Amino acid sequence: MQPFKHLVVIGTGLIGGSVSLALKRAGAVERVTGVGRSRDNLELARKLGVVDAWSQDIGSTVADADAVLVSVPMKGFDGIFAAMAGHLPEGCVVTDAGSTKQTAIDAAHAHLPDPTRFVGAHPIAGTEQSGAGAAFAELYDGRLCVITPAMDTDMDALARVHWLWEQVGSRVMTMAASEHDRFLASVSHLPHLAAFALVNAVRKQATDDHDPFRFAAGGFRDFTRIASSSPEMWRDIALCNREALLAQIEAYQAELSGMKAALEASDGEALLEEFTEAKAAREQWLATHGNGL
Amino acid sequence: MQPFKHLVVIGTGLIGGSVSLALKRAGAVERVTGVGRSRDNLELARKLGVVDAWSQDIGSTVADADAVLVSVPMKGFDGIFAAMAGHLPEGCVVTDAGSTKQTAIDAAHAHLPDPTRFVGAHPIAGTEQSGAGAAFAELYDGRLCVITPAMDTDMDALARVHWLWEQVGSRVMTMAASEHDRFLASVSHLPHLAAFALVNAVRKQATDDHDPFRFAAGGFRDFTRIASSSPEMWRDIALCNREALLAQIEAYQAELSGMKAALEASDGEALLEEFTEAKAAREQWLATHGNGL
Repeated sequence: MQPFKHLVVIGTGLIGGSVSLALKRAGAVERVTGVGRSRDNLELARKLGVVDAWSQDIGSTVADADAVLVSVPMKGFDGIFAAMAGHLPEGCVVTDAGSTKQTAIDAAHAHLPDPTRFVGAHPIAGTEQSGAGAAFAELYDGRLCVITPAMDTDMDALARVHWLWEQVGSRVMTMAASEHDRFLASVSHLPHLAAFALVNAVRKQATDDHDPFRFAAGGFRDFTRIASSSPEMWRDIALCNREALLAQIEAYQAELSGMKAALEASDGEALLEEFTEAKAAREQWLATHGNGL
Repeated sequence: MQPFKHLVVIGTGLIGGSVSLALKRAGAVERVTGVGRSRDNLELARKLGVVDAWSQDIGSTVADADAVLVSVPMKGFDGIFAAMAGHLPEGCVVTDAGSTKQTAIDAAHAHLPDPTRFVGAHPIAGTEQSGAGAAFAELYDGRLCVITPAMDTDMDALARVHWLWEQVGSRVMTMAASEHDRFLASVSHLPHLAAFALVNAVRKQATDDHDPFRFAAGGFRDFTRIASSSPEMWRDIALCNREALLAQIEAYQAELSGMKAALEASDGEALLEEFTEAKAAREQWLATHGNGL
């Protein structure tokens, strides 16, 4: 396929910046303009070569784009899609990098004059870092990227966006947005809520005289690492994937209740079976999918 | 204090073997004998210099000991204390390295002729490795070790055991066994159960056509790392600390229910507050206690 002539990256942080660097590395884009709220971050992105130029006016910037990447927190989607509407040239494809996909499709349909050229994507990679200074071209190499066309998605747009994410270096997989959202609710959104909840359960027991945190060690550190994630980002993800996440919290509570019942009954056999199957499932996952994480 | 003349380490794996190496490093022991079930592991321990000799007969081996360390899974305690009874020489101190402390005291009182010379200990350190080959002298350096004397503990025995764990390199703290067990239920035992439960919640949803594990990434890996721990060991710990752990599961379920209610109400403010306080508490913990973990 032909390289993109002008890619606009709205939100030039770790995620968007790394996409830009990866596309430049692949020769898949001629020119990249960054758009964002922080002038300092945009100027840093330009100095580091993450983007070629920057702007804070969405409408005029996308007017000659042939691809737009929206890589901002989910709650910003409506405003950005509304700002693009009426300025996107014919044939321009739009994709995103958000963690929930049905809400991205909804925002595109609510605001874009031609939502058939929007193809949502979720590159499953990241670090705890943020900002253009944290971006690097290899972030997505070999990692999964789920793209979620809707029923009305234009086939040419789908092919272009598929190619874009391949050029980024990711392994591209296509599925329905609702299916993506259910999968991610279980293996990503639920663990985040569970980690936040566990830290709070401990926090609420802590007093000056009685501080359980003093006795926390490496297991606690790893289990709760994701509780150091951005609260704003996770509030948005939780709200955007509310139904699926509620179902996952219920499934998790049922598991905990089962373990609690076994413990109340001092049923060592049942506990051993649950723990053994969990360990086996995790180790099978690590062997099958855990490489390079 | 005078070095120990003959330390017997019952259970010569990562934990007991590392204590032996650390005491040798400190010149705090003249001779160490390892006792265990696996001849291969005991012979490996001797070849690696983790112990000076080994035996599979507890009674005759402890007969000339002045210190005994019990470092086996909790369910083995009763049998080992029973096997030592009647063979321990006067003045010999006994300590352990188990993860729950009230059950260790109970086992000592149930079996030892002089339980006043038993002082339970929990060195809070470990790795995923096991066996004598994994032992290393630095495992406990700067790490917390909680020792839990009972009301009737002999003061001389307490001083000797306190000194022993200092010589190992750990920071020794003294508290009641019940208090230790409550603290560890919240920051260690609960997270393990929560990780096992989460893996099982995902596992039970997985089918050949619908496998959420494919979409799990680094956050899932770290959150569930402790679900790869030994099922037998965690069954024992759960049963040994049943009451405190049940209370912690309930506290955790209450947190999850609170988040679920906020999500059902689409209450972004409440979610943001919970997530923000969890992140702040974790980061304060990391800054205060997380060094070197």
